[in-house]
Amino acid sequence: MTTAVELIQKKRDGGELVAREIEWLLSGYTGGSVTDYQMAAMAMAVFHNGLGPAELAAWTTAMLHSGEVLDLSHISGPIVDKHSTGGVGDKVSIPLTPMVTACGVWVPMISGRGLGHTGGTLDKLESIPGLRTQLSTQEFKDVLEKCGLVMGGQSETLVPADRKLYALRDATGTVESIPLISSSIMSKKLAEDLDGLVLDVKYGVGAFMTDQQLARQLAQTMVGIGADHGVKTVALLTQMNTPLGFEVGNASEIKESIDVLKGGGPADLVELTLAIGAEMLMIAGVAPDEQSARARLEWTRSSGRALEVFATVIGAQGGDPGVLDDPSRLPSAGQTHEITADRSGFVSVCDAYKVGVAAMRLGAGRERKEDTIDPGVGITLLAKPGMEVSKGEPLARLRYRHAARLEESLRVLDGAWRIADERVPTEPLIAERIGA
Amino acid sequence: MTTAVELIQKKRDGGELVAREIEWLLSGYTGGSVTDYQMAAMAMAVFHNGLGPAELAAWTTAMLHSGEVLDLSHISGPIVDKHSTGGVGDKVSIPLTPMVTACGVWVPMISGRGLGHTGGTLDKLESIPGLRTQLSTQEFKDVLEKCGLVMGGQSETLVPADRKLYALRDATGTVESIPLISSSIMSKKLAEDLDGLVLDVKYGVGAFMTDQQLARQLAQTMVGIGADHGVKTVALLTQMNTPLGFEVGNASEIKESIDVLKGGGPADLVELTLAIGAEMLMIAGVAPDEQSARARLEWTRSSGRALEVFATVIGAQGGDPGVLDDPSRLPSAGQTHEITADRSGFVSVCDAYKVGVAAMRLGAGRERKEDTIDPGVGITLLAKPGMEVSKGEPLARLRYRHAARLEESLRVLDGAWRIADERVPTEPLIAERIGA
Repeated sequence: MTTAVELIQKKRDGGELVAREIEWLLSGYTGGSVTDYQMAAMAMAVFHNGLGPAELAAWTTAMLHSGEVLDLSHISGPIVDKHSTGGVGDKVSIPLTPMVTACGVWVPMISGRGLGHTGGTLDKLESIPGLRTQLSTQEFKDVLEKCGLVMGGQSETLVPADRKLYALRDATGTVESIPLISSSIMSKKLAEDLDGLVLDVKYGVGAFMTDQQLARQLAQTMVGIGADHGVKTVALLTQMNTPLGFEVGNASEIKESIDVLKGGGPADLVELTLAIGAEMLMIAGVAPDEQSARARLEWTRSSGRALEVFATVIGAQGGDPGVLDDPSRLPSAGQTHEITADRSGFVSVCDAYKVGVAAMRLGAGRERKEDTIDPGVGITLLAKPGMEVSKGEPLARLRYRHAARLEESLRVLDGAWRIADERVPTEPLIAERIGA
Repeated sequence: MTTAVELIQKKRDGGELVAREIEWLLSGYTGGSVTDYQMAAMAMAVFHNGLGPAELAAWTTAMLHSGEVLDLSHISGPIVDKHSTGGVGDKVSIPLTPMVTACGVWVPMISGRGLGHTGGTLDKLESIPGLRTQLSTQEFKDVLEKCGLVMGGQSETLVPADRKLYALRDATGTVESIPLISSSIMSKKLAEDLDGLVLDVKYGVGAFMTDQQLARQLAQTMVGIGADHGVKTVALLTQMNTPLGFEVGNASEIKESIDVLKGGGPADLVELTLAIGAEMLMIAGVAPDEQSARARLEWTRSSGRALEVFATVIGAQGGDPGVLDDPSRLPSAGQTHEITADRSGFVSVCDAYKVGVAAMRLGAGRERKEDTIDPGVGITLLAKPGMEVSKGEPLARLRYRHAARLEESLRVLDGAWRIADERVPTEPLIAERIGA
């Protein structure tokens, strides 16, 4: 008879668990016969000793099968999703998915909420009046079938082992483990019944992983899991030392996303959206190469097709599509405060972590899971690396609702910008491409 | 504000916890504000990264102060205890403590119960009709004051953090950690308000630690903790590949102990009793050197003084001292079975682990904590390493109550003895002495 203690000891001592043991462990944990304290000890043992390729495949499969798995077999077209490990100002999913869908790819996106200094797609979408993201499985499928795109939250029944294990890891200092992170992400994505997946794995001060080498390991691990499960998976390793785009906040990021869909938007945001979108089209087989993929994506912006898709999805999820024509319908905090350059020169650093925390302090993010979001507050960056500023010119504009929160936010922003005498070369946004 | 997650992460990443943090963690755990799953993750992090000397001292102190600490300041003589990490047939405490007490040393011994293949002093003592080991703190002190010796179990109020943590470690595969083992043992011993302590740290197949080097590490660690707390501590590293003495069982080990107190007993058992006893007398300052210490101990046997002390303690703890004159009053299972040598030659191995498990299967030990003990069953070894046997001669006699249990026991004993053509040199019983 297998016991949890034996499996913990095996992993603790560097042994390799077999698939049957992992399956027993995770189904026992989901069912309650393996306790939280046993799983906590196991998670710490995995933190220290890792999981081999076969263990990781079995672990992900066991997580995946801990609950319901979407059945999208009735959809005949290619089904591709995208996942980002999270960053500051990262609203890529919002303009990206309507553009990709307008090219004939089905996107059943399950997103998350913001925590700490990073925002979440669901929070941003919910700044659109009336829009709901907590959909039943049937609603989720209905919206997908009607629009080719749906953006919802994780349901109670999808990968329950991950829901339980993630909360435990959060409380036991076992979050930062590459096998546990990658199986958590991939089990949820694999439960979406995908043909392909593009991962945006971020590194830098504003990312979950600051170190590029660790981010590369994570990317390689997830691409391997995808391949093992027959899902074409590509990862882009992208830089997150600087916030993406100019807007950090919920409603303001929707506004910036609408700009992209209308053919405008900041260069870095557009570039990353096109790069990820091109990978999705190529994986889906609707574009033969990057050049034609990018051309098709650009066409969805110039033709208004992408904006139409987004309007349909907003409507299908109960939201007001009128925000697309009139972004002033989005919430916005009335009071603003500008911070200014204390010297002239070239911006060399705009610290994504500090900006992320500062936005959270204004109310745009959550310090704790139970905090509520204020969709109307946020930070508009007016100076980013490579730009020239004169002393006294504004670096950023903060939209706030409470003076006390503004004070906290300003304290965090202290030293967030660095200004040099000469122009410092900016880091490339996309550092590496990993996968098939 | 300190949080459990931060402390877990610090230890997980190889950092050093400060005394204040360890105190916060362990008092939080005892009080319930630090959860079992957080402590499980911490225990696994300690398993992997260890504890530095300052951390270990703070950890032990925090455990020690999690509950009541004995106050024996009214006792004017030297107070010294002994602890063994446990082995098969290890009844040393039983003849040892009356001998040491008869030399003028006070011994407030808190012992444990058997688990798995090793027996426990409390279980052995309780085979004496009427004898109680679960004493209140007041009873414990009263017996000590009256007799100079008391042998009881750990009370609910003494080191409650250890009680809770040990149960958790048992369920989470985090028992085998030198800092956790040593702080567990030493916090309980330090709570006895001792002047000195002698540790019998066993290694070999029948010990908790099979490896001599790990046992040495454990011994050095515990001696260091003792010194840090101003308690003179010496450890003997002793071999446990072969059971100690000829008797393995509860009542039968009491009988063998009485033999020692009367001047007889097996050579290995007597030797270890004298060696540990001599260390205790020297630490207590009642003997200047080993030679005179051994002479005094031998005198307690020849004069009958040690037996008198034992009789008084048995009586004070509610037991029948008549067993000393008439050991047939001790329980004994009626049926016996002998196993015999399948060839002639010299015994080279008598496997302590197999003998220990076989005795447990007969009912002399516990597979699980909640199992009950049968004091009358056990194994009498008739051939040990170095002895010559002829084919068909008995190697051991098993006293049993149920045929099914005998069968199980015999299965375990398969291959427990090895018989060689020539006499193999026996390992020394006492390998090393560590400490002041």
